Amino acid sequence: VITGGLGPTRDDPTREALAAALGQPLQPDEAAAERIRAFFREIGRPMSESNLRQALIPRGCRVLENLWGTAPGIRAQLGRAVIYVLPGVPREMREMFARSVEADVRARAKGSAVAVRVLRTYGLGESVIGERLADLMVADRNPSVGTQASEGLISVRIMGRGSSPAEAKRLVDQDAAQVRTILGDSVFGEGDEGLDAAVGRLLAGVGRTVAVAESCTGGLIAKSLTDVPGSSAYFVRGYVAYSNESKAELLGVDPAMIESHGAVSEQVAQAMAVGCRHRACSDYALSVTGIAGPSGGTPDKPVGLVYIGLADATGCTVCRMTFGGHLDRQAIRDRACKTALDFLRRRLLS
Amino acid sequence: VITGGLGPTRDDPTREALAAALGQPLQPDEAAAERIRAFFREIGRPMSESNLRQALIPRGCRVLENLWGTAPGIRAQLGRAVIYVLPGVPREMREMFARSVEADVRARAKGSAVAVRVLRTYGLGESVIGERLADLMVADRNPSVGTQASEGLISVRIMGRGSSPAEAKRLVDQDAAQVRTILGDSVFGEGDEGLDAAVGRLLAGVGRTVAVAESCTGGLIAKSLTDVPGSSAYFVRGYVAYSNESKAELLGVDPAMIESHGAVSEQVAQAMAVGCRHRACSDYALSVTGIAGPSGGTPDKPVGLVYIGLADATGCTVCRMTFGGHLDRQAIRDRACKTALDFLRRRLLS
Repeated sequence: VITGGLGPTRDDPTREALAAALGQPLQPDEAAAERIRAFFREIGRPMSESNLRQALIPRGCRVLENLWGTAPGIRAQLGRAVIYVLPGVPREMREMFARSVEADVRARAKGSAVAVRVLRTYGLGESVIGERLADLMVADRNPSVGTQASEGLISVRIMGRGSSPAEAKRLVDQDAAQVRTILGDSVFGEGDEGLDAAVGRLLAGVGRTVAVAESCTGGLIAKSLTDVPGSSAYFVRGYVAYSNESKAELLGVDPAMIESHGAVSEQVAQAMAVGCRHRACSDYALSVTGIAGPSGGTPDKPVGLVYIGLADATGCTVCRMTFGGHLDRQAIRDRACKTALDFLRRRLLS
Repeated sequence: VITGGLGPTRDDPTREALAAALGQPLQPDEAAAERIRAFFREIGRPMSESNLRQALIPRGCRVLENLWGTAPGIRAQLGRAVIYVLPGVPREMREMFARSVEADVRARAKGSAVAVRVLRTYGLGESVIGERLADLMVADRNPSVGTQASEGLISVRIMGRGSSPAEAKRLVDQDAAQVRTILGDSVFGEGDEGLDAAVGRLLAGVGRTVAVAESCTGGLIAKSLTDVPGSSAYFVRGYVAYSNESKAELLGVDPAMIESHGAVSEQVAQAMAVGCRHRACSDYALSVTGIAGPSGGTPDKPVGLVYIGLADATGCTVCRMTFGGHLDRQAIRDRACKTALDFLRRRLLS
């Protein structure tokens, strides 16, 4: 599989390289050229002639249609090898892989079947999960069970092999049930699902709404919640109260409280969450105030100190987190956002 | 360079694989073990014994210190090859590469020098840029000039080779000046700088402030602006006015206007921007209202239709964009955010 180098400019050499490797000339593919013209007609912009370079295909190859962009992919055969050339733009590449490559490869594979499930967790460290799942994470076991850490989330990947798809699936389902029992509430979803979608699913399920009041995360939590299609069913509004004045004006936080306890304090996190819930008329409200850095830290309140408030009809709970030391600004904001979403998720489960 | 597989769990086999390839036993490195213990002391969490697996190093290898996590890297020599083993976590990998690998590789390279500059642009398509820079984007030219598209931004990469660093730099600077002349205002920054940082630099330079009122971008613009350290100097506040009620309550948009023109309309975008600027007492205000999809589109107002408002002391301008067809929800939100930031950037330049 080759990706990239299919753009319209001279520094995109993949078509030429493939033609040279195959020993075939490049020829314009009329259907591909027409799709490129149609693409520009649709978005209402003039097409450069150079875009038609993207319709050149080595003789004898098959065009793979690109539903998301102008560069068609190419399927070539060289001796016993099948070569798939895909665009480098991740979104276009993924779509083309799923539609044109996967089925083709699957058709050429014989006999054995594979099934995969990925369970996503938040709240436990990778080494703790490794210890709890030690009996499953044994080399050469079928299914294989492995963990992967990415931006604070730990995924548990279960891959089973069997002589039929049903058998592979049965083995994987069995392990997945066991992993869920062992890790409990820390498993928030499967596959690609993020904490934002997991929280959204739970909110939609009980018909409740949420609003957010953000200081150091600066809109990240609202952005995450609204990344999910259909989030308008439960996401009401967000306040990005970055300055002290805006905390008072937007959320009704008493300026004297900010003066005496500081903007990064348990008291202010609580007042932000309660004020947000009240003004937004939502069932739940999340608030975040903290020091994302790189500057602004003090010995008492170091970079990475974050207070997260969660208000509901029963009152408000605030948790204090210290993400400092080994995390930078982006990672501190990311962890504060995920911890806030997880806070709400566990509340919705309880 | 090998990355990943250095975690504490049994499915992280890189240390064992390297030891096998070198024909050397794994031995605990006491300094590395102590740093792992110190790491857990610092973050105030108990250490699992399995974490000490990360301090095992094949005999005769050098430890590369990890400033951002627990897994130390390894430098090994096998015959004439030098092998660098780095953690898979991108942030840890990058830091270790920059500090421990780059200088080592540089010291082993001889004679020739290379200089690179990357100019970042927004607003022109990759094929238009390719045509305007055709004389520079010639194969085997020194410097080489190439373009790369990523999420709507087009980067122009200039790489020059010379017998000294000064000569390579001179060649690259010359081309960079020419590219800037040809592409004009579309160049917004260099290197890793995003539109958010470019806008922030311009705002800070003239001592002006901005506030944002977001509907379909749901906090993304506020999040982008506050990604930049020091953004509290110019970012005042943000409103995520996702529901119609919140557009009226938070920004003073007349509900009758929403009723007659629809929430996604030029009129509402204008009222959002003007209301936001007024309530936030900021110099500039950006507003966004649109249809990010996947549902909610109509023949008149298809998915991808976005209105962006920019209010300042002179009034309010609204631009209408259609991002539909080949972009999904995330990409539509991303382009709406970038177009809004670029709108403000060009206003600040003019």
